[in-house]
Amino acid sequence: MVEKAKEKQTQAKRTVGQKRNVTSYDVAKHAGVSQSAVSRCFKTGASVSKKTREKVMKSVKDLGYRPNAIARGLITRRSNMVGVIVSNLNFYPEILSELSTRFAERGVHVLLFTLDHESDVARTIDEVSQYQVDGVVAAAHLTLEQIQMFEDRNVPLVSYNRSYQDAPVSSVCCDQVEGEKRLVNLLAEHKQHKFFAVVSGPKDSVVSMQRTQGAIDQMKALGIEDVAQVSGDYTYPSGRNALRELVEEYGRVPDAIVCANDMMALGCVDEARHSFKLQVPNDVSIVGFDGVRSAAWLSYDLTTIQQPVESMAEAAVDMLLERINNDQLPPEKRSFSGVLRSGATVKT
Amino acid sequence: MVEKAKEKQTQAKRTVGQKRNVTSYDVAKHAGVSQSAVSRCFKTGASVSKKTREKVMKSVKDLGYRPNAIARGLITRRSNMVGVIVSNLNFYPEILSELSTRFAERGVHVLLFTLDHESDVARTIDEVSQYQVDGVVAAAHLTLEQIQMFEDRNVPLVSYNRSYQDAPVSSVCCDQVEGEKRLVNLLAEHKQHKFFAVVSGPKDSVVSMQRTQGAIDQMKALGIEDVAQVSGDYTYPSGRNALRELVEEYGRVPDAIVCANDMMALGCVDEARHSFKLQVPNDVSIVGFDGVRSAAWLSYDLTTIQQPVESMAEAAVDMLLERINNDQLPPEKRSFSGVLRSGATVKT
Repeated sequence: MVEKAKEKQTQAKRTVGQKRNVTSYDVAKHAGVSQSAVSRCFKTGASVSKKTREKVMKSVKDLGYRPNAIARGLITRRSNMVGVIVSNLNFYPEILSELSTRFAERGVHVLLFTLDHESDVARTIDEVSQYQVDGVVAAAHLTLEQIQMFEDRNVPLVSYNRSYQDAPVSSVCCDQVEGEKRLVNLLAEHKQHKFFAVVSGPKDSVVSMQRTQGAIDQMKALGIEDVAQVSGDYTYPSGRNALRELVEEYGRVPDAIVCANDMMALGCVDEARHSFKLQVPNDVSIVGFDGVRSAAWLSYDLTTIQQPVESMAEAAVDMLLERINNDQLPPEKRSFSGVLRSGATVKT
Repeated sequence: MVEKAKEKQTQAKRTVGQKRNVTSYDVAKHAGVSQSAVSRCFKTGASVSKKTREKVMKSVKDLGYRPNAIARGLITRRSNMVGVIVSNLNFYPEILSELSTRFAERGVHVLLFTLDHESDVARTIDEVSQYQVDGVVAAAHLTLEQIQMFEDRNVPLVSYNRSYQDAPVSSVCCDQVEGEKRLVNLLAEHKQHKFFAVVSGPKDSVVSMQRTQGAIDQMKALGIEDVAQVSGDYTYPSGRNALRELVEEYGRVPDAIVCANDMMALGCVDEARHSFKLQVPNDVSIVGFDGVRSAAWLSYDLTTIQQPVESMAEAAVDMLLERINNDQLPPEKRSFSGVLRSGATVKT
């Protein structure tokens, strides 16, 4: 009897150790139902009686069965995962949050690839495709060669906030150039603004390049030449540093400063106020771009262009899922206008 | 000849259409190497000659082969994915960024599950386990029943910043109670602080509950009774609102306010300064908890407890990977002390 009890224990242990090997067949047998009834219990919207479901779920629990979305993916050729490649997560968590929530609502989950720098994207691509994601949203700059790699591997791609003017790739963007035009026009309205400066972002950021160039082009179009230029890395400390550099290099504080993003603009505002004891906007007008939450805080009330993050995320999710379902759809470019948020950091 | 050319075209098209079906066997045949040579090309650290690698990579490109990490996972019983369940992504993007980078360095990618509210976690658990992740980091509160579900499914779990005192579950935490004690002690040092208030976070946040209770307990221990209490939802606007509520409800501005996180503390500081025209800290001292980037900005210089996010993320990644590799390891709890960051929002 002792022997038998021991054997039973050993058997039970073996079962526990083998939990990962339990199949839907085991569950069906244990529950006394067909295998297809088991699989219907794990399919959204599939019909199954309450009684059957209860029997199946009890067996699932008893046996420790885990329905295998991935093995199912090998049959349906869908993993129900999309890759999201994102740089600057710390600056724009809203994007990832919006994308993740919207994909989840459609039964798709996000496999995350974060980059420290935009230029790290190359080594990420092979990893992305190894996971058999159904598609990719890239919020990082890709080269045309990299875009071709997705094409070659039949992986639908939507580029987020990076447009490729002459390449057949789907993208959702905020119109950076239009946004900068409106900011520069606003600044140019005030006659006391004579000495303009631009603070660009990281060198490998195409968005920063588009914004900076957009601002400078519009200044030129309005007859403003000799624009001071320094660069930061999109962070708050680099915005503070940019103001110090401008003063050192040009011998005076500019009348109006266009920063390539909000974080640098906030750093610039704080440096002007707290280190140079200047009044913003009386002594210097400062604008940003993005419309991050902190830009609206009472201490700043920054004048900026608000990116329509919700509309952009919704569009990216729609476009990608459409292309996963139908690989014949042509690439599409969607461009959203930002919203000018007139704050208290520009002289009126 | 025309017929043959057409046939060839059709064949080529068929090959393109079947891209997803190309196997390592096809690649090996095309490259004239063994199948194991192909698989070695896709294995980190495996030895393969430069010549072989070049031949294989050419065939990979020609045939449009995608090495299948997932199919490989079915054999190795590893998906090389870990699930990260995170609430409040917008407040603490640093956590996700730190976890994602560190896992990626170890060849593991993050499948993301974002929650709008901590209490949404229940419906997420089934989804998480369906993706056959190797393990889970949960930065959201789980019930003991939910923890048991991971245990039942043999999914290693590490809880991030939520501890379960009497349950055998691995966790990495910042010591919330110790942190609040130090903040309260600091505030109590100043004799002008007589009327204390606490601003708690969302009702379903255990972290907020621990912090709030920790603060109140320490106040009681120091003989401070009659503590004013209002609650917010961890956001900046709710911090502004909390100050208005305190004044309405208690008829005056408290001398010292302990907020359950930094965001609410920043809202509280701004509301005091900009709406009530008060001086912080001369008229009211305010402290937060977390050490978010904006807390250190010149406009705020908030007194707070800095969570050691890097050490905590490193510990969570280590603990989870160790448990994926060895399911015999016992649960372990690691608790890190926060760092008191003495800013300019407390009277001295």
